[in-house]
Amino acid sequence: MTRRDFLDQVGKVGGAVAVWGAMESLGLLGKPLMASAKEFTSPKKSDLAMANKNGKKIIILGAGIAGMAAAYELGKAGYDCKILEARERTGGRNWTVRKGTAESEINGVKQIAKFDKGLYFNAGPARIPQHHVTIDYCRELGVELEVFCNANEFSYYYQENSGPLSSQKIRKGTVKADTRGYISELLAKVSDKTALDRPLSKEDIERLTAYLKGEGDLSSDYTYKGSTRRGYKELPGAGLNPGTIDSPLALTELLQSGMMNSISGDYDFNQQPMLFQPVGGMDQIPKALESKLSGKITFGAEIQEIRQSADGVRIVYKTNKNGKTSEITGDYCICTIPLPVLKNIPADFTPQMKNAIKNINYATTGKIGLQFKNRFWEKDDRILGGITTTNMDISQIWYPSNDFLSQKGVLVGYYNFGQNAVDYGNLSLSQRQARAISQGAKIHPQYAQEFETSFSLAWHKIKYSEGGWASYSASDRTNYYPILNEPQGRIHLAGEHLSYLTGWMAGAFESARIAVSRIHEEVLKESKVTSKVG
Amino acid sequence: MTRRDFLDQVGKVGGAVAVWGAMESLGLLGKPLMASAKEFTSPKKSDLAMANKNGKKIIILGAGIAGMAAAYELGKAGYDCKILEARERTGGRNWTVRKGTAESEINGVKQIAKFDKGLYFNAGPARIPQHHVTIDYCRELGVELEVFCNANEFSYYYQENSGPLSSQKIRKGTVKADTRGYISELLAKVSDKTALDRPLSKEDIERLTAYLKGEGDLSSDYTYKGSTRRGYKELPGAGLNPGTIDSPLALTELLQSGMMNSISGDYDFNQQPMLFQPVGGMDQIPKALESKLSGKITFGAEIQEIRQSADGVRIVYKTNKNGKTSEITGDYCICTIPLPVLKNIPADFTPQMKNAIKNINYATTGKIGLQFKNRFWEKDDRILGGITTTNMDISQIWYPSNDFLSQKGVLVGYYNFGQNAVDYGNLSLSQRQARAISQGAKIHPQYAQEFETSFSLAWHKIKYSEGGWASYSASDRTNYYPILNEPQGRIHLAGEHLSYLTGWMAGAFESARIAVSRIHEEVLKESKVTSKVG
Repeated sequence: MTRRDFLDQVGKVGGAVAVWGAMESLGLLGKPLMASAKEFTSPKKSDLAMANKNGKKIIILGAGIAGMAAAYELGKAGYDCKILEARERTGGRNWTVRKGTAESEINGVKQIAKFDKGLYFNAGPARIPQHHVTIDYCRELGVELEVFCNANEFSYYYQENSGPLSSQKIRKGTVKADTRGYISELLAKVSDKTALDRPLSKEDIERLTAYLKGEGDLSSDYTYKGSTRRGYKELPGAGLNPGTIDSPLALTELLQSGMMNSISGDYDFNQQPMLFQPVGGMDQIPKALESKLSGKITFGAEIQEIRQSADGVRIVYKTNKNGKTSEITGDYCICTIPLPVLKNIPADFTPQMKNAIKNINYATTGKIGLQFKNRFWEKDDRILGGITTTNMDISQIWYPSNDFLSQKGVLVGYYNFGQNAVDYGNLSLSQRQARAISQGAKIHPQYAQEFETSFSLAWHKIKYSEGGWASYSASDRTNYYPILNEPQGRIHLAGEHLSYLTGWMAGAFESARIAVSRIHEEVLKESKVTSKVG
Repeated sequence: MTRRDFLDQVGKVGGAVAVWGAMESLGLLGKPLMASAKEFTSPKKSDLAMANKNGKKIIILGAGIAGMAAAYELGKAGYDCKILEARERTGGRNWTVRKGTAESEINGVKQIAKFDKGLYFNAGPARIPQHHVTIDYCRELGVELEVFCNANEFSYYYQENSGPLSSQKIRKGTVKADTRGYISELLAKVSDKTALDRPLSKEDIERLTAYLKGEGDLSSDYTYKGSTRRGYKELPGAGLNPGTIDSPLALTELLQSGMMNSISGDYDFNQQPMLFQPVGGMDQIPKALESKLSGKITFGAEIQEIRQSADGVRIVYKTNKNGKTSEITGDYCICTIPLPVLKNIPADFTPQMKNAIKNINYATTGKIGLQFKNRFWEKDDRILGGITTTNMDISQIWYPSNDFLSQKGVLVGYYNFGQNAVDYGNLSLSQRQARAISQGAKIHPQYAQEFETSFSLAWHKIKYSEGGWASYSASDRTNYYPILNEPQGRIHLAGEHLSYLTGWMAGAFESARIAVSRIHEEVLKESKVTSKVG
């Protein structure tokens, strides 16, 4: 019997007040308010019916993932949700750039994507780990998934000014095989293993040595002499062709190149395989949410004021089209506006809250999509999906994880952060394109001949976002984050910035669940008060 | 200018004999005959036209990958190919089991797959590395690819009778993070690194230590104390929920478990990411080839004799349907029959060839497909694709890499080799099913409730295959393999067994390319002789 079933049974026998009491004794309503989204269950119509409630009117600011997820969940219980969205589209930073996509950056010129029909890149979030709640929403909403290729051993490392391997593209699998080989050899050859820092029995030392031999593909004398794992000089094949392998890179070359330091990036919990993307673009997720929210979203509504009283909330907004100011009232507000935007909107928040909002930094980050006539990376380099990593300021090249073997494709020609992103963001559109192509061409000379068209963006210069994601320092988490998480009267914040999954859609989804649960609790709580009074 | 363009030009000016001379001087016709498929170019009609040839009649034995690829390539130049296929379907060991698939093993009972429509598993080859020629054929034939999930850090290791971690399912990412942590710590803490077996400068030692800190996610004192990479006890999320991590497994526990020894399996050159599978089943490849060979394949034709003279080949076959014996003649024969089958067919081969054929062992291997009502591994375990690895005799559990988030699915409940496969193969169908379920249920208790239907097979008991793939010892490669690669008069062998890519479709494709090139060379060579005589 689930908790939900139990409460339903209690409701049938004892009515709303009994449900309230049961929920309280189950610890569902006590202070502190729900702080984790892990135990979330969607509000149900029967909750409100049992409490003699018809729900309330909830004003939601922003039709990104958090705002729409909140409206979707509240809608399951019959709440009357209205979403105000400044843009003419849903999704916020979940944004797929395809033919006709138009955007002007702050102080920038208008850019219209000229990609061929069917080609696109995900300008914002682009990968979903299998353990994120985002997967559950894809299942529930019928969003079809395909694998996102993150770690591909055939993609390259390419480093400049880094010793003897400078300006050479080397397959990631080669660097990994050689690194594992040397590390295993070094440890396997430590003659007195009992002197190692961990206590090891004789049997453990034998097991460790056997493991190292396999891990590094070492020869019988525990020397690393290369391995088929690093790839072949001549691939093996049919007939009298067993293949040949090259000597390994020298350990000092590897160490000087710094390539080996990038390997552990593949181990990050949010970047380990498997990762996924929706078929057809990341915006299939907001589109699926939007399809559940027909008539509830007002587009082009730029928020001017966020007001509240003891009885309700009042939101003043300007309609982009005619510049007219309107207002809307409701019982509660969920505000998902990114903090760099929110800090400039007059709002009935405490001074502490206002101070917290203005003190959170957002990541500077940018991407460029480059359309090419042919998928030379698949045909010539035999790289199907994955990411090439470099210390040039493009930082990364992403190969598409979809429509393999088709003719044309869009690469992400840079995906960078911090100062690199600021620098790229300061360039004109044509300068960004030229710089991305000239750097990328060092790895893929085919760029020059195959390039067709580009679309670039700097998130810190995109209106209504003004940054990639909340970038908390440890002290921000201590000083400001708890304040942001406390409801301000009838106003609850939500979004990736209200999570420890910043930059991930899962943070937005989970924070929406918390806001939904808290408002729902409040509404049920009022019913208890009413029952006692009535 | 390509070699092909050059020869075309030569042909226009000087005719077939000039082409021949040019080819000879380019080393295209000299002894030894083409031994590598890497330099393959498809035969063209213009080759034969220039040589005043109309091609020849080629009899191909077997409509698997090798046989059909040979017919497809020869067909491009206008050769008249006839394929004799013992089964009523193409593909050979490339075999996708779906609703209605029927098979009787040798001395076995008839089995008909009862999977739901749309559900299937690949009984034979099931993954394609991005560097295999198979990818090129998929591109050329329009076979759509999707990612095959090989290494998934959320799938499990599960070992029995192996120390304190026995009978615990542990995420692969956890084992990997802890292993990398300890190995990095052990090496980072070797106090006198100049005593290590490789010469290391002071700067290299600093770089090595920095690398180890990152590789192992070590603390500032270079101790491994666990890492978020191993996964969380409580996942991080929205609100005041940063997540918590468990202590690492003990090094001695890991060493005793043997789990860490399985990690390097993910590094194998043919199993590194990215890997692919055709959308809709591996048999989309033979189906695509078949669609190019309309009218050229005779099904149900069991080969009885393989004969040749100086002038041509003669193949005697029995039609399965009526048991009638027929024969067909041609100029050349390409024989792709697996050696355990071929050794029992009377053939005009040299005694050395016959001896080689009968001396090659084939792998014993088996699989079972288990259909479940719900994809509990995706919903409960959050495993989307990938492989669980165990020392139980099921060896592996494969989670489907397609149709993620849909309701039902087919797991590969065992995929084993050697004695495990022999043991499973000796069981009745219901015993195999019961054993696979009881072992798998130790990892996934949901098996009991969710199981619906199974289909199992032992390749060494499948008629016309009698094994998984050629399994050469080093001495076999020296003693027998070169003999198998020499054409026997007008008869050329092809198939995965004629390659260093045994067990991979690429071996079959490449060997077909060699047979095609050799026959085409022979035909062009005859034209030279004719020209000189005529």
